[in-house]
Amino acid sequence: MKYVYAFSEGNKDMKNILGGKGANLAEMTKIGLPVPKGFTVSTEACLDYYNKGMTLDENIALEIFENISKLENVTGKKLNDDVNPLLVSVRSGARSSMPGMMDTILNLGINDQVVETLARNTNNKRFAYDCYRRLIQMYADVVRGFPKSSFEYLFEDIKKEKNVTLDTDLTADDLVEVVNRYKAEYLRLAKEEFPQDGKVQLLEAVKAVFRSWNNERAKTYRRLNNIPDSWGTAVNVQEMVYGNSGDNSGTGVAFTRNPATGEKKLFGEYLINAQGEDVVAGIRTPQNIETLKDIMPSCYEEFMKICDILEDHYKDMQDMEFTIENGKLYMLQTRNGKRTAAAALHIAVDFVLEGKITKEEALRRVEPEQLEQLLHPAFDKESLESATVIAKGLAASPGAATGHLYFTAEDALNAHKNGVAKIILAREETSPEDIEGMNIAEGVLTVRGGMTSHAAVVARGMGTCCVSGCSGVVVNQEAKTLTTSNGQVFHEGDFLSLDGATGNVYGEEIKTVPASISGSFATFMTWADDIARLEVRCNADNPKDAKVARDFGAKGIGLCRTEHMFFDKMRIFNFRKMIVAPNKEKRIEALNAILPYQKEDFKGLFRVMDGYEVTIRFLDPPLHEFLPHTDEEIRELAVSLEMSFEELKNKVESLKEFNPMMGHRGCRLAVTYPEIAIMQTRAVITAALEVEQEGIKVSPEIMVPLVGDERELHFVKNIIDEEANKIIRENNSSLKYKVGTMIEIPRAAIRADFIAKEAEFFSFGTNDLTQLTYGFSRDDASKFLKDYYANNIFTKDPFKTLDQDGVGTLVALAVSLGKKVRPDISLGICGEHGGDKETIAFCDKIGLTYVSCSPFRVPIARLAAARARLDNDELI
Amino acid sequence: MKYVYAFSEGNKDMKNILGGKGANLAEMTKIGLPVPKGFTVSTEACLDYYNKGMTLDENIALEIFENISKLENVTGKKLNDDVNPLLVSVRSGARSSMPGMMDTILNLGINDQVVETLARNTNNKRFAYDCYRRLIQMYADVVRGFPKSSFEYLFEDIKKEKNVTLDTDLTADDLVEVVNRYKAEYLRLAKEEFPQDGKVQLLEAVKAVFRSWNNERAKTYRRLNNIPDSWGTAVNVQEMVYGNSGDNSGTGVAFTRNPATGEKKLFGEYLINAQGEDVVAGIRTPQNIETLKDIMPSCYEEFMKICDILEDHYKDMQDMEFTIENGKLYMLQTRNGKRTAAAALHIAVDFVLEGKITKEEALRRVEPEQLEQLLHPAFDKESLESATVIAKGLAASPGAATGHLYFTAEDALNAHKNGVAKIILAREETSPEDIEGMNIAEGVLTVRGGMTSHAAVVARGMGTCCVSGCSGVVVNQEAKTLTTSNGQVFHEGDFLSLDGATGNVYGEEIKTVPASISGSFATFMTWADDIARLEVRCNADNPKDAKVARDFGAKGIGLCRTEHMFFDKMRIFNFRKMIVAPNKEKRIEALNAILPYQKEDFKGLFRVMDGYEVTIRFLDPPLHEFLPHTDEEIRELAVSLEMSFEELKNKVESLKEFNPMMGHRGCRLAVTYPEIAIMQTRAVITAALEVEQEGIKVSPEIMVPLVGDERELHFVKNIIDEEANKIIRENNSSLKYKVGTMIEIPRAAIRADFIAKEAEFFSFGTNDLTQLTYGFSRDDASKFLKDYYANNIFTKDPFKTLDQDGVGTLVALAVSLGKKVRPDISLGICGEHGGDKETIAFCDKIGLTYVSCSPFRVPIARLAAARARLDNDELI
Repeated sequence: MKYVYAFSEGNKDMKNILGGKGANLAEMTKIGLPVPKGFTVSTEACLDYYNKGMTLDENIALEIFENISKLENVTGKKLNDDVNPLLVSVRSGARSSMPGMMDTILNLGINDQVVETLARNTNNKRFAYDCYRRLIQMYADVVRGFPKSSFEYLFEDIKKEKNVTLDTDLTADDLVEVVNRYKAEYLRLAKEEFPQDGKVQLLEAVKAVFRSWNNERAKTYRRLNNIPDSWGTAVNVQEMVYGNSGDNSGTGVAFTRNPATGEKKLFGEYLINAQGEDVVAGIRTPQNIETLKDIMPSCYEEFMKICDILEDHYKDMQDMEFTIENGKLYMLQTRNGKRTAAAALHIAVDFVLEGKITKEEALRRVEPEQLEQLLHPAFDKESLESATVIAKGLAASPGAATGHLYFTAEDALNAHKNGVAKIILAREETSPEDIEGMNIAEGVLTVRGGMTSHAAVVARGMGTCCVSGCSGVVVNQEAKTLTTSNGQVFHEGDFLSLDGATGNVYGEEIKTVPASISGSFATFMTWADDIARLEVRCNADNPKDAKVARDFGAKGIGLCRTEHMFFDKMRIFNFRKMIVAPNKEKRIEALNAILPYQKEDFKGLFRVMDGYEVTIRFLDPPLHEFLPHTDEEIRELAVSLEMSFEELKNKVESLKEFNPMMGHRGCRLAVTYPEIAIMQTRAVITAALEVEQEGIKVSPEIMVPLVGDERELHFVKNIIDEEANKIIRENNSSLKYKVGTMIEIPRAAIRADFIAKEAEFFSFGTNDLTQLTYGFSRDDASKFLKDYYANNIFTKDPFKTLDQDGVGTLVALAVSLGKKVRPDISLGICGEHGGDKETIAFCDKIGLTYVSCSPFRVPIARLAAARARLDNDELI
Repeated sequence: MKYVYAFSEGNKDMKNILGGKGANLAEMTKIGLPVPKGFTVSTEACLDYYNKGMTLDENIALEIFENISKLENVTGKKLNDDVNPLLVSVRSGARSSMPGMMDTILNLGINDQVVETLARNTNNKRFAYDCYRRLIQMYADVVRGFPKSSFEYLFEDIKKEKNVTLDTDLTADDLVEVVNRYKAEYLRLAKEEFPQDGKVQLLEAVKAVFRSWNNERAKTYRRLNNIPDSWGTAVNVQEMVYGNSGDNSGTGVAFTRNPATGEKKLFGEYLINAQGEDVVAGIRTPQNIETLKDIMPSCYEEFMKICDILEDHYKDMQDMEFTIENGKLYMLQTRNGKRTAAAALHIAVDFVLEGKITKEEALRRVEPEQLEQLLHPAFDKESLESATVIAKGLAASPGAATGHLYFTAEDALNAHKNGVAKIILAREETSPEDIEGMNIAEGVLTVRGGMTSHAAVVARGMGTCCVSGCSGVVVNQEAKTLTTSNGQVFHEGDFLSLDGATGNVYGEEIKTVPASISGSFATFMTWADDIARLEVRCNADNPKDAKVARDFGAKGIGLCRTEHMFFDKMRIFNFRKMIVAPNKEKRIEALNAILPYQKEDFKGLFRVMDGYEVTIRFLDPPLHEFLPHTDEEIRELAVSLEMSFEELKNKVESLKEFNPMMGHRGCRLAVTYPEIAIMQTRAVITAALEVEQEGIKVSPEIMVPLVGDERELHFVKNIIDEEANKIIRENNSSLKYKVGTMIEIPRAAIRADFIAKEAEFFSFGTNDLTQLTYGFSRDDASKFLKDYYANNIFTKDPFKTLDQDGVGTLVALAVSLGKKVRPDISLGICGEHGGDKETIAFCDKIGLTYVSCSPFRVPIARLAAARARLDNDELI
């Protein structure tokens, strides 16, 4: 088994064993670019190191030494040599880039003798001793794990003694003194001298880099970026080149195109007479890469040529590191450059137009999630940087919101009416009654609730910025104050800003810039639609949202939640009247008062969705959600309902449930109160008939929620069909409508063959299905799931990405049972997962017809659908 | 297709088409017993009648007339005849007995002429006119649906006019007058004369009996007794015989053995000169059948002979009706007699000993549910009959409880300490904190909650009588009053009695008799155990319950709920201290205080279960269940915990959950607080080691609840194994213990192959599995499931009998996945379903190892297990 590869032995496709950096160094070597010589110790050596209880196998050590010998041969330099010593860098490099997470040691190979040789050869004693003290410091930190501060203090001491402020003001002799003190400190800490043998330094450095794979920040980074712990890192050992060896030297980083905008123009910066770490440290201000043209024209020209070669070779925008040593250009790294969404789109489309990649390849160049950046207003970058974070919650719904603080939906609405344009609504938690207030708010802040709390779900649906679960602040609704953990108090009307992408809360106004979509966006999305097999519909409850979604490319409504329509002031009154009605007659009376409104809602949706299907879910939440809960509110409502307080209070109490999620809701309401389903059917069908008269094509789909047994659906469908057919007959119409069901109860998935006999379509309600399959209440789970993530029991939030092993098994089962009985059954998903990339790939694989998601996720879902097809059919 | 069968054409195995009564009349005819001649219109004719929109097919009518002709030939009588008229009875008779639910018409065939002939032939005008007026009255009611009262008023009028009180005081002429007025009333109501043609009467009567299959009380009876609507009823048309034709006539009912005790002795009663309905009407007091020996010795002797013939023939105790007409005995019905559980056992065992049936057949003669009657104290029958029902709730836990009324667990406990022996605890609803109070109570009454509410489940577990969901009463805890719907108020200390078998509540003391088990019980249960394949374990949390269960034949503990052990005063204090602990150290401190108690609990269980496995479930309920919720209680607790009220209140608030059933509970607690699992492991293992020292065989099984993912179980199992192995090593012991899991989350069933890699046993928690598979909160579902039963959407309570189609599919899936990975995996069920007969049959079929149920259901489960094997292996 081979564990070490010279750069000349590898290529770019060997990332799995050489890591990204190593594979690309090998590739550049292969295509003849100027790369300092070196070799890569493979990721397999790293895994072997861990498998053997963190010891480096003797054979691997021997293989490293063999490669050092070869390196000595090709460079003509020798480790520990008095005349022409070999100095190397030792750098980590995993399969996937983990910038800054693991360790690096430079200048390896220096010892008490080599430092003198180096001083002599470069004729620069200061430089040589500076390299030596950097080596000792890095080695002590990385290999031995001694505190950095021990050495930093010593360095500061000398600067004080010499009375200088800048490092560069220290003389060569000063640095000799630094090295002496460093070596003494090393001896004190390590109880042994700093190793003088370059080979010892090298093996220790390689092991240390392996170990750094499992440091805390690397583990966290992997968890956040879904990088498996099992990959391991490679180690690159490379001859040192020095950008800091005089004014004819330098170092820099550059992108072949602008990573912020995608513009086709070299983008980068460099420093003359400096090492890479100086660029990062920010001690000197780097210069724009353009200026290199004048200072070192031939290097610049060569670099430009290399840029073109690399872009053509990798067929992607490159992010490169280079060093110039005494007028000679060396490439130290190349990789596909990270970029903003706007740049990614721009570059992908340009590459297709330039004939470098296919449309399919272009679709792979933009991550669906990146599109989100393009769809919400953003903070002005500069203003944001100068603002102070006063609290941090969950990044529940992206966007940048700034406005005046209000504590109740009612206050927010009043302020809105009185002309306050930008409002931030802060609540302990939101409830359906807050919807109108949320609707006019720029952003919503809640103290309780997770990523899928009411506030978060509704806000994402609305495309409103939301920070949820901000438990560090105290919201006092009575006093109308928000108090931060350090005691700062904000009052009604004060400015507050929320960053829905980070969860940061700011106690001031921050400038925002509106969402802008680059010209390449439309082109790109057309290509996505050409490839995609899954249709994308939207979850929308009103014409405004439906319009946004249709503009974003939605092909129909997959979920219209009718209950959201009942929270308007006039309707909620009648709806409550319905709930408290003492008998069926009174209930029907109240429902009849709601009917005209509900019909108008549907007409609006049908008009916007001309030609597309509109799936309307019948009343779903438990009735107690529509009633007030405090005595004061009950007293008030009792007066307007002309009931006694006690009577209404008793009604409220009797409707209370221990586990409302599993209570009297969904189709269970239609079983108890068929008159509600009858009213909703009448509203859907009459709306459809009236809009059809306007020359619009209407395809209503009535969706019965929370079905668990075919007899339930049979019962409710009978009620719907009877009413619908009566109206259609009365109007001599030939309107077609469908009746289908949500599959959101585990039992419904298990009995999908029986249910498909009644249902013309299935829509997977994966929110509830996930809740019930796991037994996780989504409103409560965030409290304990954090312990699951901390203990690596879970790595993903099952409410964000569908759990394919468990919930997905039920979905796939239902699909196959459903198709067996009704081969042409329409199959969709309308849970929050409908907008998630991985879930969409799963939906494509198991053969769903469409996914439905919130309007602002429609473009993301369209791209994800295209990507799903590419992956599942292995098209590229 | 043949629709009508003469009695001589049928036999006892034709119940499906002839109904039970018809098949047995045919059988008795076949074996030569004296049965009045007749024929049966089949259940298929009934179904045909319904299929044809409630019209009687002409061919069926013709077939009926053909059989009337045959009947006329064999009897020598003729319908509508002036000389020897044929009179018949028309009686319903379904496949399964539905006593009194459907309609009957007697004396059919009388008209204005026949009545005179009858008077002449019997020389009894009074008798003839009494028969006629009965026919008109029954016909008007059954065939035409006219109110009975119309005729009853007329009858009372005549009695008033004649100034008599008893019907029998009316003269023949009076009855002629009655008939005249009846006919006039019939004409007024029907707008036509009472039909004079016997054939018309007959066809109308047959149709009316068919219709009575679907009257409300028949439908309700079928729903309660699981009789399918699709069976239909047969109609028996039979020559009338008259027990009321003089002192040489009579009628009676009898059982071949005592149906209350099972004693082998004829049991019955009769009336001289009476018709069957007179026995039922209770106008005269019937005489003991023994006295017939003296009055009509030959009839008695013949009847005794027939009893023996029938018992031998049917191989079961018979319930018979007979009539003696002018000294001649006629058998009108025989069927297997209904009997008490005690009698059923006694008779079954006697029949085996008499060599009439096999042991397997004997096991089929006692319904498992019947045994319940033998296991709880019962009300003294006489005292019960004279008591007044003041309210009615759900028959949640059987038993007869009488005692003094208390409104809080605390008050009940205090009263108990002060010597009040019998206590009835009445609560709005119970919570885990009430357990001690429930434990010492004779019976528990709750206003809210269903058959599976906390009160019901716990009460059944304890074998305590419970009436739940008694919504007709108002319980005021503050005022300590219970108010019935008609305003009657009961105070603390007042007597109250509960019948847990009927749900009746009585406002007085009622005498009870302790449970007595007849000598045959043990014999019978041995036979059951010989046949059964499933083991029966018990759900028990304390040595007392465990002892009861072991005495009832339990082979181990399938579920010990450790949380029940924390409600003792001293423990709950430390447990609460644990919950509110500000850090892990304080938490461990509090847990250490609980450890010795918990260890003692386990020692007690291990001792009782010497030789058997004891399955201990680790802490399951959400922590907020252990904290008080009212401000007053919180304030009190805060003082003893040395916290501020606000601090504790905040803690209580922060633990509140929207859907606690799906919240922070089960193994999720162990993930967050591994120290709890560590303490419980220590308690189990040290208890086992100490009891082992006493020479007792201990087999502890640690059960991790609410697992949904193998990684969860892996995490918790590691914690358990580490602690357990440490203690076992320290003690140089070779103690074996198992770690397994509940399968109660749908996802666990789906992933059972992965979970079986970690779990040494599965125990199906079908309560929670049912909740999650259906999405039904068991505490809330009773509110809407009533509408499901009313609409025939559901016919069974899924919390009582396992839903095999849905939940059962998941259980069977988990069994097969689990066995695939671990062929010797132990599989049990510990939900409430574990004691249900149908569920036990299912468990046997899919290959479970054991069922676990509450102690008082152990004998029931043992019998059900035997029955399951008989059925599933088709052994008889």
